Amino acid sequence: MTALSPLAPAQFPSLPAIAGVRLAVGEAGVHYKGRTDLLLVELVPDTTVAGVFTRSLTASAPVESCRKALTGGLAQGLVVNSGNSNAFTGKLGVASVERTVEAAADLLSCRPSKIFTASTGVIGEPMADHKITDALPGLHANLADDAWEQAARAIMTTDTFPKAVTTHADLGGVAVTINGIAKGSGMIAPDMATMLAFVFTDAAIAAPVLQELLNEGCTRSFNCITVDSDTSTSDTLILFATGAAGNDMISKIDDPRLEGFKVSLNALLVDLACQVVRDGEGASKFISITVSGADSQQAARAIGLSIANSPLVKTAIAGEDANWGRIVMAVGKSGQRADRDLLEISIGGIKVAAEGMVVDGYEEAPVAEHMKGQEIDIAVDLGLGDGMATVWTCDLTHGYIDINADYRS
Amino acid sequence: MTALSPLAPAQFPSLPAIAGVRLAVGEAGVHYKGRTDLLLVELVPDTTVAGVFTRSLTASAPVESCRKALTGGLAQGLVVNSGNSNAFTGKLGVASVERTVEAAADLLSCRPSKIFTASTGVIGEPMADHKITDALPGLHANLADDAWEQAARAIMTTDTFPKAVTTHADLGGVAVTINGIAKGSGMIAPDMATMLAFVFTDAAIAAPVLQELLNEGCTRSFNCITVDSDTSTSDTLILFATGAAGNDMISKIDDPRLEGFKVSLNALLVDLACQVVRDGEGASKFISITVSGADSQQAARAIGLSIANSPLVKTAIAGEDANWGRIVMAVGKSGQRADRDLLEISIGGIKVAAEGMVVDGYEEAPVAEHMKGQEIDIAVDLGLGDGMATVWTCDLTHGYIDINADYRS
Repeated sequence: MTALSPLAPAQFPSLPAIAGVRLAVGEAGVHYKGRTDLLLVELVPDTTVAGVFTRSLTASAPVESCRKALTGGLAQGLVVNSGNSNAFTGKLGVASVERTVEAAADLLSCRPSKIFTASTGVIGEPMADHKITDALPGLHANLADDAWEQAARAIMTTDTFPKAVTTHADLGGVAVTINGIAKGSGMIAPDMATMLAFVFTDAAIAAPVLQELLNEGCTRSFNCITVDSDTSTSDTLILFATGAAGNDMISKIDDPRLEGFKVSLNALLVDLACQVVRDGEGASKFISITVSGADSQQAARAIGLSIANSPLVKTAIAGEDANWGRIVMAVGKSGQRADRDLLEISIGGIKVAAEGMVVDGYEEAPVAEHMKGQEIDIAVDLGLGDGMATVWTCDLTHGYIDINADYRS
Repeated sequence: MTALSPLAPAQFPSLPAIAGVRLAVGEAGVHYKGRTDLLLVELVPDTTVAGVFTRSLTASAPVESCRKALTGGLAQGLVVNSGNSNAFTGKLGVASVERTVEAAADLLSCRPSKIFTASTGVIGEPMADHKITDALPGLHANLADDAWEQAARAIMTTDTFPKAVTTHADLGGVAVTINGIAKGSGMIAPDMATMLAFVFTDAAIAAPVLQELLNEGCTRSFNCITVDSDTSTSDTLILFATGAAGNDMISKIDDPRLEGFKVSLNALLVDLACQVVRDGEGASKFISITVSGADSQQAARAIGLSIANSPLVKTAIAGEDANWGRIVMAVGKSGQRADRDLLEISIGGIKVAAEGMVVDGYEEAPVAEHMKGQEIDIAVDLGLGDGMATVWTCDLTHGYIDINADYRS
């Protein structure tokens, strides 16, 4: 197995129970032996739901099933397996999802349209869904409100650590809790990785509002991370709100009571997303890239991702080389408006380039010192407008090549 | 120094003289010591010219100078140096190009607007152009019509072999010759690589026609190669036509006499472009990706480049792993229309996936055998339309990380 990422957090956080949510894990043996690979989550019947999925045009069968289920706005169950992603498995894959959903709906006594499902693992292999449906009754008998760490572990594939975060918010005078778990190592690796994230809250929020909150939060979190620029066929982010905290149902996105919740939710999404980057395949450095002064937020994000996805920038950082010329190159290729003579670049808070060239009296030593750390900060100011975005990535190392060139063998 | 690419051609081709073209190289010592780093080409006064340059918005000073010169449609000289790209050097860089152009114009007794210049090497360092202007008179005294291999070598940076190709064509009953030289190792590496290509012919072709020919040829050659998805600040492709072969001047793009010339020119451009890929940083395999059945040629090219740029596809090939699931992923993320259930994928001529899943009775052994070779063929059919394109790339290996993480140190 791959060694623990050097960027892993010191410990797994302590997650409280969320009223209305019970979890259980088990060993279905879909692909892995001797470890858990199946997660069942039961949600109270009135739970509202929102989701964001991969933009891939070759999306997996579970993603298509979730998209359909989402139109109802209600959820009562979630089934996640690791080891087989059930992607590019044709009509067999669709039938396999249907059988899994029906089995879960029977156990939880609800309509199949209230069951969400996600799969992560090898692509293109027929799914042995009978192993899942055989195991589900055992999980159902063991549902508990404290199995968060077990849940985060059961959905791991090439991940080197389980990922979770918890936070609180005030919603109209009622204290609500938000828990999130995620898996992913590499923005995606369609073999055995793939990004999955599930967020649970006891807040009462109507499904359309929940969806708007999630879309907005995702734009500045999961849509701002990259490990290797590849997009999974299975990327899934689902937010469940049980309503069990007892606040008055929030039914409008501009409800002022939502402000604190928004801030907490957005921070939780950024934290979870950054944990995925910290477990990026082969990562040795965590890189934050802040782009300001762009024409728009989208332009800033596109420029940030152009830098974050550049193999030349990422290898330079792996080599602890303060090679700012490659940042200039990545800005230039982004397709977004840029003026060479207005561009400013800082590394570790030290300005290195401005007015179309290296700054007067530039000394590389303090910048080189920053490059030796595990947390690398790059700031780019376009000098054009107010658009701003931060994106997060990791470096590109021999470890990435080892993991991905040798994976299946 | 880096070892010779395993994909290098067996020998440098024998290039004939092109009437109207004389070349000389020298050691200006801009950055390298003990090797040639400067090329001067003299062209007869009526030479027409066409050019295609980087789309980067942070283009180098020489690129901007060439773009301006190109509006005149005539060329009399070309100056190329290696070791410093004069990119992101601000106003100093612009002045440096002006001095070089003026020195060459004096020597060749022509207007500065007939001098083209290109620089390749380190980015962001002030250019010691006096070393170039001091050396130019010596080169001028040594101009000769047979210095092609010397020319191809003088413009190299991280290249492991010099790149050239020659071909012939019939132009309205007159035999004409086309020679091309190029450098590049990595589609781009803004430190010390950068793609430069210069093509010379004795044909008489008006500048606007030459430009259309070059645009068209570039679309299916240099715009269809990638090593690492990064775009240089200095990419330059210039085509010079001296007219010394004596054919009647071709002044219309639809002149039927151009047919044979077009075929020869396009083949030469593909050959030169593929030589750049064969010298891709760290390359151990040459990969041809043919996409058919797409909505349009552009869609086919975009899908091909999405596959060619995917780190997961490239590392799988480096690992000789017939991991077709990653090809499905790259098609899905391309942003182009695709239907999972119509997609067909072949590797080495063997169909591996169709109708949304792996083919019935798929045996990996013959595909695995193909993956062990140096030339990898991938074919993807979308089953949607008539759009077709071929793109070329190389694999992503530890060698790429070594070269780019350790380069400046």
